[in-house]
Amino acid sequence: MFPIKELEMQTGIREFRVKKIRDFGRQIDTKDDVLALEEPLEIMLKTGKDQISSPVSVTMRTPGNDEELAIGFLFTEGIISSKKHLNNPISQQFAENQIIISLHPDFDVDLKKLKRNFYTTSSCGVCGKESIEAIKQVCQIPLQKENIEVKIADIFNLPGKLRSRQVTFASTGGIHASALFDLSGNLLELREDVGRHNALDKLIGAVLLKAENEILSLQEKILLLSGRASFELIQKAAMTGIPVVCAIGAPSSLAVETAAEFGMTLIGFLNNGNCNIYCGEQRIMH
Amino acid sequence: MFPIKELEMQTGIREFRVKKIRDFGRQIDTKDDVLALEEPLEIMLKTGKDQISSPVSVTMRTPGNDEELAIGFLFTEGIISSKKHLNNPISQQFAENQIIISLHPDFDVDLKKLKRNFYTTSSCGVCGKESIEAIKQVCQIPLQKENIEVKIADIFNLPGKLRSRQVTFASTGGIHASALFDLSGNLLELREDVGRHNALDKLIGAVLLKAENEILSLQEKILLLSGRASFELIQKAAMTGIPVVCAIGAPSSLAVETAAEFGMTLIGFLNNGNCNIYCGEQRIMH
Repeated sequence: MFPIKELEMQTGIREFRVKKIRDFGRQIDTKDDVLALEEPLEIMLKTGKDQISSPVSVTMRTPGNDEELAIGFLFTEGIISSKKHLNNPISQQFAENQIIISLHPDFDVDLKKLKRNFYTTSSCGVCGKESIEAIKQVCQIPLQKENIEVKIADIFNLPGKLRSRQVTFASTGGIHASALFDLSGNLLELREDVGRHNALDKLIGAVLLKAENEILSLQEKILLLSGRASFELIQKAAMTGIPVVCAIGAPSSLAVETAAEFGMTLIGFLNNGNCNIYCGEQRIMH
Repeated sequence: MFPIKELEMQTGIREFRVKKIRDFGRQIDTKDDVLALEEPLEIMLKTGKDQISSPVSVTMRTPGNDEELAIGFLFTEGIISSKKHLNNPISQQFAENQIIISLHPDFDVDLKKLKRNFYTTSSCGVCGKESIEAIKQVCQIPLQKENIEVKIADIFNLPGKLRSRQVTFASTGGIHASALFDLSGNLLELREDVGRHNALDKLIGAVLLKAENEILSLQEKILLLSGRASFELIQKAAMTGIPVVCAIGAPSSLAVETAAEFGMTLIGFLNNGNCNIYCGEQRIMH
């Protein structure tokens, strides 16, 4: 799908062609820019005398230092507490998005206890090696509408409108927001949460609960994210069929790849009359 | 443990007594300040003619709009796609950190498929109603050392040292970092990742893999987080026994409560000669 190159693995970045809009649209360039690499990693464990394999976790991570990541994860989840609990060699990596950690054959790990300590969470969403394909399989909404037009001037007004309504952030400085706008940039709904995935789930849940015809209809709407755009958020947005997503922060590589695959317009670094358009620029009018 | 008050539920914030240090320590005040509320929410489903209950997910969220959150989560995970899939009444909430969503008795949801789509992830870490208690049960490291002293001037130098070494962030603007320092503020290790929990796991894994005596020893170290301090990060830090954690961004309510419970020093909003000390101030020398 998107094989990770050796250089990408070392640097943790991937290059994308980006439309850079500066000074409220007075300056427009198309150039290559780099984004933080985001890919799923499946962590597996081999345990006991027979070194039986069990899946442990899938996390969306920046490739590189995968063994450290898996070891740190096992430590902070209380599965191991010493290097003595690890086998030699510690890990095997047959595929770039999978790592198998081998625990010492004599180390008695209770896999049932492990299952109890891990909770499923929406932070991961649908992921795995076939992350984008997996969304397509569960997505029941038609693909994003093509004949949508949004003025760039309206896009530049979104962050100010969000800020003027983001009450909890103003007092705590520590909360994410997701906001829904119509195609003219009028704010329709706003939700806040310490978890960015929760802010978006709250927003989508609110719209569905208020829907008159029982069906979610976001195909003529704009979504604004107060922070960075990770895969997880774009996956949730893709599930709703929303055509335009803007983020005040940076997108990840997999966020851009997913948005492009779903025909969405993805805008990042939106602030002070500047933004980058990563895909779907045909919907943005200058 | 920390019952959520009615006002907190409405505002999503909680008040804490904070030591505010400004202008490189020239101004020090102790005052009340508010933080974003963070608490676990367990989402449960009732399905079928018999309305059988199943646990679905636990997420760390800001209380409020819990029904919207659960509905949005079920929608973006592909479990429901219309309001018609919901029962009447939609939800029950017997405890403040649990919500039970009732699906329409005729709606045929495949719970096995649901299990396949959810992945366990470290984003959640150890959570649930007894979040802090749960960490104590799995934590095998002695509590944080008391007789540690760190100069506030050394603390103020940490963000600059992090920035000068954070190579991927400089190019992408979209990545988190965790950095380890000695008690004099010398940078020892730095790891970056799109997921803040992964950056910390990588750092901890790296230190354990390099440990000479096979045991992680962070009891005389300082941890710096490039962004906000959520419960999840403080939980991972607590597992290592590290005594001092600093964040450039805001902590959440549960982050402060967890740090206090474990006897850690927690500093937030560390930047430009300013910071807030939330707990463990006896280790910071002025």
